[in-house]
Parts: sequence; C-alpha cells; structure tokens
Amino acid sequence: MNYEMIKAAQSRLAGHARVTPLLSSPMLNDMAGRQIFVKAECLQHTGSFKYRGAYSAISALSDQDRTKGILAFSSGNHAQGIALAAKEHGINAVIIMPQDAPVIKINNTKSYGAEVVLYDRATQDRDAIGDQISQERGLNLIKPFDDPQVIAGQGTTGLEIASQAGEHSVSKASVLVCCGGGGLTSGIATALAQDAPDFTVHPVEPDGFDDVKRSLASGQHERNSALSGGICDAIITPTPGKLTLPLMLEHCPFGISVTETQVLRAMALAYERLKIVVEPGGAVALAAALFDQNAPLEDTVIAVASGGNVDPHIFAKALSTL
Amino acid sequence: MNYEMIKAAQSRLAGHARVTPLLSSPMLNDMAGRQIFVKAECLQHTGSFKYRGAYSAISALSDQDRTKGILAFSSGNHAQGIALAAKEHGINAVIIMPQDAPVIKINNTKSYGAEVVLYDRATQDRDAIGDQISQERGLNLIKPFDDPQVIAGQGTTGLEIASQAGEHSVSKASVLVCCGGGGLTSGIATALAQDAPDFTVHPVEPDGFDDVKRSLASGQHERNSALSGGICDAIITPTPGKLTLPLMLEHCPFGISVTETQVLRAMALAYERLKIVVEPGGAVALAAALFDQNAPLEDTVIAVASGGNVDPHIFAKALSTL
Repeated sequence: MNYEMIKAAQSRLAGHARVTPLLSSPMLNDMAGRQIFVKAECLQHTGSFKYRGAYSAISALSDQDRTKGILAFSSGNHAQGIALAAKEHGINAVIIMPQDAPVIKINNTKSYGAEVVLYDRATQDRDAIGDQISQERGLNLIKPFDDPQVIAGQGTTGLEIASQAGEHSVSKASVLVCCGGGGLTSGIATALAQDAPDFTVHPVEPDGFDDVKRSLASGQHERNSALSGGICDAIITPTPGKLTLPLMLEHCPFGISVTETQVLRAMALAYERLKIVVEPGGAVALAAALFDQNAPLEDTVIAVASGGNVDPHIFAKALSTL
Repeated sequence: MNYEMIKAAQSRLAGHARVTPLLSSPMLNDMAGRQIFVKAECLQHTGSFKYRGAYSAISALSDQDRTKGILAFSSGNHAQGIALAAKEHGINAVIIMPQDAPVIKINNTKSYGAEVVLYDRATQDRDAIGDQISQERGLNLIKPFDDPQVIAGQGTTGLEIASQAGEHSVSKASVLVCCGGGGLTSGIATALAQDAPDFTVHPVEPDGFDDVKRSLASGQHERNSALSGGICDAIITPTPGKLTLPLMLEHCPFGISVTETQVLRAMALAYERLKIVVEPGGAVALAAALFDQNAPLEDTVIAVASGGNVDPHIFAKALSTL
C-alpha cells in the first residue's frame, strides 16, 4: 500500500464517497486551549469512513472477479460499507455477522441489499462458515482493514484533510485518528506523509483496549487482553493488522488512549458545538484533542470523527453529561 | 432585494460561511417514497443559517458605520449569528434578549463576545430599550429577517442548493424551507428563480403557527393567534416580514404545515440516518419531505435543515421515538 494507490482510490471514489466537512467551534478551542478541527466522517455514506475502503476495494477488482460478488465478516460499520458499495456496483454481497450483533446494524446491512448470514459466536466457527460459502460461491473476501485497497480507500480521508487544512492555512498539526485495526490510521498517515509532511498522525484508542498504542511503543504486535466490555465496540480489535502496523510504525511516533467518561463528554460536545452525531468509537480522537493535556501535541489538532452509528440509549447517556 | 445582492453577499461570505453539505440516505428515500436531499445548515457556524444573514448585513455596512457597532433583538439563533459575525469584524455587538431566554443561548451569545442586555418581557418595552441604546451609542440595528442584506445572506444557501443539486443531476425539485419571518425562504426562492428555475420553493411551519402558509393563500399578512406553546421556538413569529412576503408571494405557490409528532420523528431520523443534530424549528421541512403525502410535490424534494441548537432534553424526547 502506498501513496499512489490512495490517489488511484480517490479517482475511483470521486462522485461516490462524500467529501466530508472539516468542522470547528471557537467554544471547543477555548475549552481545550488549542485549535481543534474535526473531520466529520460520521457524515460519510452509511455513517462511517468504512464506505471509502469498501468502495475502493470493490472498484479495484477486475470486472470478471467483481461479478462473482463479495464476502465480508463484520458486526458493524464494515458490513454496511460493503453492502452499500456492492449494491452500487450491482453485485451481491454476503455478510457474515454474529447473531448477537445489534439488530439495527443487521437490519441496516440487509436494507442496503446484502445477504446476511448469522452465526453463533459460542458454538460456530466464523472462518469455517466463511471458507465454505466462499468456496461454494467463489466470492471475493474483503477484510475490514488488512487489505491494501481498503487501506488506500481510507487514506483518501487523509488527502481531504491535507487539502481542507490548507484552506485554513494550517501548516503544522497533530492528526488524531480513532483506531481499531489501523486501516484508517495507516491510510491517513501514508497520505499525509506526502501531502502534509509537517502533520503527525497518532492513533487513539479507549483505555484497556490500547493494543496499537502498546504496539507502537514496543515495535511489535501487542494484543488486548479483553475484546468486550467497553462502549467503543467499533474500534475494539485483538491486535493491529499485518499490513497496518508497519505503516503506523513508520509514520506514527506514539498512540494515545482515553477514558470512557472522556468519550461520552466528547460525544456530548460534538452534539452541542458541531451538531454532529458521533458514536463512542468515533469520538476517541476528539476526546484526546479536548482532554489530553499530557501528550506532546501541536497547537493545532485535527481529530477524525470516524463514525456515527450509535444506539439512542448510549447517545442519551452522553447527552446526560451536559 | 434581488439576485445580484445574493451573488454579492456570496462573495463577501466566501471563506467565512461554510458551504454546508447536501446529505441523503437511501433509507429515508425508501421510507418517504421519494428522493430526499437535506441541506445541512445546522452545520453552519453558530449552528444555524442565521450566521449567513448576520455576516452579510455587517459586511455590507460602510466602514464608517460598521465601526459604531451592531444592535440586535433576538432570543436565539440570530443573536449568535450577529455575535460571531461582529466578533469576526472586530466590532461590538449589543444583543437585547428576554431574561427568560434559554440560559445556553444567552451564554453562547456572550461567549461569542457580544454584550447581552436582558429585559423583562412582562414589564419592559423591548423597542424602547433598543431605541435608547441605539441613540446613546449610534449602533446599527440589524433586524432578524426584514432587512435586504440579511435576506441576501440567507439566499446564498439557495445558490449552494442549485449548484449541489446540479452535481446530483437534479433538474426539477420541490425545495422545502423551515420558515419563521421568511428571510431564509424568500432568499432561497429568489436565488433559485435564477439558478434553478424548475425548482419550486415552499415554506414549512408547525401546525398552529402557520401564518406564512395562510398569508400565501390569502395574499396578505395573516397573523398567528399564539406566539408560544410549541417546541419550534426558532421559527415562531407573529406574521411574515414586509420585505419577505412579497418575495414569497412571487415565488412560492403554497406553504405546508406539520405536526409536532412529525417534527420529533424527523429529528430522530436525521440523527439515525444522516448523523446530524437538528432542532425542532429546523426539522419542519424534513418532516414535510418525509411525511406529507398530500401536498403536490416533485419526486425529488430538497429539505433545508436550518438549525441545530436544541436542548438535550428535547433531543432525548425525539430519540425516544426511535
């Protein structure tokens, strides 16, 4: 995965992915004591940046391969991104989802036209189901982050950040990115290394699920001890990707982690000051921009709000902090 | 007020007002049985379109007049728009607000640097206070809607709608606009009459506060019998403006009104499907786009989401409809 692949993905995504706005509020700046911009990827199609990578990967397939259809594993945002991008290409998508995934995410994925295959996490082997379906139907498997064309698609967010920050005359900035497997972070970092070399990218995770932060510190793949129990479900993954970690080690000097209290407060402030809906996993970067006074960051911080697919009762909980 | 004034306002607003995105969701289209686009003016600076008109009017003053400062009456969005636009011009703003206005709106207006003068609606005469302050300090009064340069500023929203709809190859559409005094509606209608003559603009109001709808039907200024009691506070005004009604009579064939239940449901769907925060008065147009099956509208409807300054408890009430 390299810069040229991101530029190529941008050409394929033109007219499909939204160029999401870069928002700001003087109140947030005053509160944080720094200049904050928010790249509102929650306004992307399907409510998260995942549409970019999904569309990029599907559009990069040969016509012959693509017509066979797509297979993906996901309990959330990747599923919806794949479903919509497949529909737009006029091809079938099969999404294997855990049967305890949120009903709204299962229904949304079906609404975009995908075939959803549910499995029982406790008793069934997801990979075996996937292998069987893939062999029977000859589908193309698109992984959620460890795929070069997925990373390239997510990297188009970085091209837009460089261009939009330039319009605000920002020449030096810390760019904070909500990080699960690292597809978005590594894509943005690769894009900015070329287009805005004085910008430094940092992955942000929830406390207790900071495998990327620890991997950047140790230089090797670290794992999370738990994979559930937090509100930031969209970005909780076991360990960074095989493709994404080397890119992050090259471009990202350190990671940051935030508390769930800070995440809920960041969601509330995004509601109050920016008028956008951000899900917990999509709010960790803004939380760090607002509340982390220890990390050595630039005076200008650009936080990616990576998604907005949040259940109303969690959102109401965030609002109750106002 | 004419098209050329809107184009001139657009030049003055360039680099200041945000070009807000035109959003859509296949789920909303399926639900409504028509193609819906949402012009997300809730993402404008200060959380509403009012910033456009405020900036337009202040920037249109002569340098000599402008340095004297601005006077405005408002309990809400106009106050915040004037306060920020005045701050950006480096001049003082005095905003006369009722002392029972929402604390958050008073505090926001102060945060943007304006001097807030509170009065008691029951015992004090707002206009007398305004006259006295204006005479003592020689301030420029900027009215919330019945001012040509304010209307021109709001009309820049229409220029953007024409351009953005063109990118989606929309050549014919009904454009629904949340309507209080008519500044936004008449500005957009004037802009579109030139740039997209096959688009038809309709003001939308809450049931029971439909003075503009009735005025369009009768051809003269009709009044609301009540000015409080609804959740759509931002767009409840006694009667259409002297400048705005003739423009609306020229361009808008009829108005639409919606129920508060429809408004709350539209706010919830904007949260769920578009990831934007819309206030009740800013959601009436989307409510009509989603739920009005009686009005003779085009197959493509563009609804302006005009503002997002909503108290958390009202927003939580909207979410409870999901």
